Amino acid sequence: MKIIDVDVLDVRFPTSRTLDGSDAVHLDPDYSCAYVVLRTDDGPDGHGLTFTIGRGTEVVVEAVRSLAPFVTGRDTAELFGDLRGFWRQMVGDSQLRWIGPEKGAIHLAGAAIVNAVWDLYAKASEKPLWKLLADMSPRELVDVVDFTYITDAITPDEALDLLRAVAPGKQQREAQLRADGYPAYVTSVGWMGYDDAKVERLCHEALADGWTSFKMKVGGDPAEDARRAALIRGAVGDEHRLMMDANQRWDVDEAIDRVKALAEFNPFWIEEPTSPDDVLGHAAIAKAVAPIAVATGEHAHNRVMFKQLMQANAIGFCQIDSCRLGGVNEVIAVLLMAAKFGISVCPHAGGVGLCEYVQHLSAFDYIAVSASLDNRMTEYAEHLHEHFVAPIDVQGGRYMLPLAPGYSAEMRPESLAEFAFPAGACWR
Amino acid sequence: MKIIDVDVLDVRFPTSRTLDGSDAVHLDPDYSCAYVVLRTDDGPDGHGLTFTIGRGTEVVVEAVRSLAPFVTGRDTAELFGDLRGFWRQMVGDSQLRWIGPEKGAIHLAGAAIVNAVWDLYAKASEKPLWKLLADMSPRELVDVVDFTYITDAITPDEALDLLRAVAPGKQQREAQLRADGYPAYVTSVGWMGYDDAKVERLCHEALADGWTSFKMKVGGDPAEDARRAALIRGAVGDEHRLMMDANQRWDVDEAIDRVKALAEFNPFWIEEPTSPDDVLGHAAIAKAVAPIAVATGEHAHNRVMFKQLMQANAIGFCQIDSCRLGGVNEVIAVLLMAAKFGISVCPHAGGVGLCEYVQHLSAFDYIAVSASLDNRMTEYAEHLHEHFVAPIDVQGGRYMLPLAPGYSAEMRPESLAEFAFPAGACWR
Repeated sequence: MKIIDVDVLDVRFPTSRTLDGSDAVHLDPDYSCAYVVLRTDDGPDGHGLTFTIGRGTEVVVEAVRSLAPFVTGRDTAELFGDLRGFWRQMVGDSQLRWIGPEKGAIHLAGAAIVNAVWDLYAKASEKPLWKLLADMSPRELVDVVDFTYITDAITPDEALDLLRAVAPGKQQREAQLRADGYPAYVTSVGWMGYDDAKVERLCHEALADGWTSFKMKVGGDPAEDARRAALIRGAVGDEHRLMMDANQRWDVDEAIDRVKALAEFNPFWIEEPTSPDDVLGHAAIAKAVAPIAVATGEHAHNRVMFKQLMQANAIGFCQIDSCRLGGVNEVIAVLLMAAKFGISVCPHAGGVGLCEYVQHLSAFDYIAVSASLDNRMTEYAEHLHEHFVAPIDVQGGRYMLPLAPGYSAEMRPESLAEFAFPAGACWR
Repeated sequence: MKIIDVDVLDVRFPTSRTLDGSDAVHLDPDYSCAYVVLRTDDGPDGHGLTFTIGRGTEVVVEAVRSLAPFVTGRDTAELFGDLRGFWRQMVGDSQLRWIGPEKGAIHLAGAAIVNAVWDLYAKASEKPLWKLLADMSPRELVDVVDFTYITDAITPDEALDLLRAVAPGKQQREAQLRADGYPAYVTSVGWMGYDDAKVERLCHEALADGWTSFKMKVGGDPAEDARRAALIRGAVGDEHRLMMDANQRWDVDEAIDRVKALAEFNPFWIEEPTSPDDVLGHAAIAKAVAPIAVATGEHAHNRVMFKQLMQANAIGFCQIDSCRLGGVNEVIAVLLMAAKFGISVCPHAGGVGLCEYVQHLSAFDYIAVSASLDNRMTEYAEHLHEHFVAPIDVQGGRYMLPLAPGYSAEMRPESLAEFAFPAGACWR
């Protein structure tokens, strides 16, 4: 099988019209993606995406075009046989790397392609991605990871040992997830732009649906944050978890003051309290606001940033993003480091396609890497799942394992037609 | 005066054909830029660029188009009157920021526009940029800086105090630079791809021209690095400075070993020993290889990265890049932090247009911010200056002050025509 062409689409959903997804920094997101289809000559196509929030998607689309030569014309057996080498080619091109390296538009674009390659690999293997990964041997898994710049935190041999140590329980953990699903928390009750009545109604509906962990946005006016925290804490009850997400809104000292002021509402974590680039800032905040844990990751752009967040004791929760990181290969690198450092991975999701993606990553993490569900939850937001061919199945606050072959990012043709930007019916 | 249109060009020079600029990671750079012209209705045009190395320039060009609405149609008096507000708009757009934030293609593109705005401001003021900045009051300078995310390192009041403290000597330092120029070092003797005879010849020519500080590329095969270091040290003599640049080639532990192995050649600094994102890694290397100093910055993508490099004692030399940072505003933020932390700023240059840019920044730093020349040098490489309307004037290893109004990035029309990619004569 050969990849004969790479299609890329700019797809945007007008979520800013209802303020779904709104927070203190992203006031009016139009949830979007750069959507990639790897066309093959003989077999399934590979589908992949990277999540964006409206303007700027056109830049990522252009970057996908710049990276397309790395897959076009490739024999898939050869590609699947050296996924580390392929990944290094993508992120290490001697000219393209200048506009990263391993960050920003070019890394987001690479993620869409890398994710599409893994989708194709899983489809060709007739397995959902989590199962493809869970069935790989420790050696095979280590061989897809680029350890460049992280050997001071974890070596390939250490990763092998770690994977081998938990391998005996894989079957049992897989059976457990097949029966019970993977725990999740819900974000869509607490968007910044929703009015009180809507927030209360959503909290009560979520409780009725079996949710026990909830996230709200903070980082607005301090009094307003406190008022909304009281509202949501009141609605969900003291016995449940309430996470708070500041979306990078504060400077370091300000973050410490603001988190302390919200401590009375017993946040389970404070997410993105400051610049995503500020490892030392997160460490200072974590130290000052303990025992409230710091969470971050949706804007941590590569394994080097996560390495430092872990080395500096800056995070209690590691929020990998399936598209901000350079796709599945780099996600595995971070899962391995998190397991070594004993940090819980709670993937970032929501957006468009992120829930579809991270359900695979969390299942794989539990089955084959961390072997733990302690303090682990995958994010859930309710929007835009109807556009996917095989959408997530969430029941009673848990992700039920996806069983269709692939990585679940294939979108419905009628959705692509309607929301393609700027030519789709929605945008004309 | 109004900005009525934004032109953007992809301009590439075929430097890979002679391996000018080659290093251990960037094996075959085609020095390039995204080149921006702000067309005005009544007055000079503003010219700005961001440096790239070939493939990927098209992505930055697309990002410039995405940012163009922030200047198109703007009244320049209003723009020049609130440069902090303008800068925040550019980097803080609630949708575009997702594909950064403040990093990668979108930040490089923003730099080209911001630099063009400052060029226009300087031309409208009939001053070279360094003089425009040096003549601004401490309050006016502080007012162009966005202190978001750096107040734990420097507050606006601290910046004011620092600028006021050195203000009395500004005239004397300006006169000194007008007479003597600003010290520089030469990089173009030691590119990775040059053969021994060429390297030796270039060293001898540079000595004859008055150079006293030289930089070579390392990060290749260890024995080959040592051999080339011996060759260059032998050619330039023990009494001169020799800097070594690894261009991100090593992991942390590897960097420590490799720098120790090169210590016998007495490097003045080791530059980019590992990932530019690895603040903690640089700190570990700096501690292990002292008294050899660590230098980095050409890939440090924003003020938050520089803040941490300084807070962590990770760098002895701060190598600001006029295009990697978000243009003049963010450069000033980093100069202020460096002055507070007592770290020498030695700007990254070379490439195309970077020498033309950083001569202004170094002069301004000395006149109005650091007030020191101790251990300060601006990088110099000899290529591509002939394409600029007002190229640098380097004499006896020093940058002579540019006197033409503006920020010196305007390129000659015939160069633009020949090297425009892909339509120019060079690429057809």
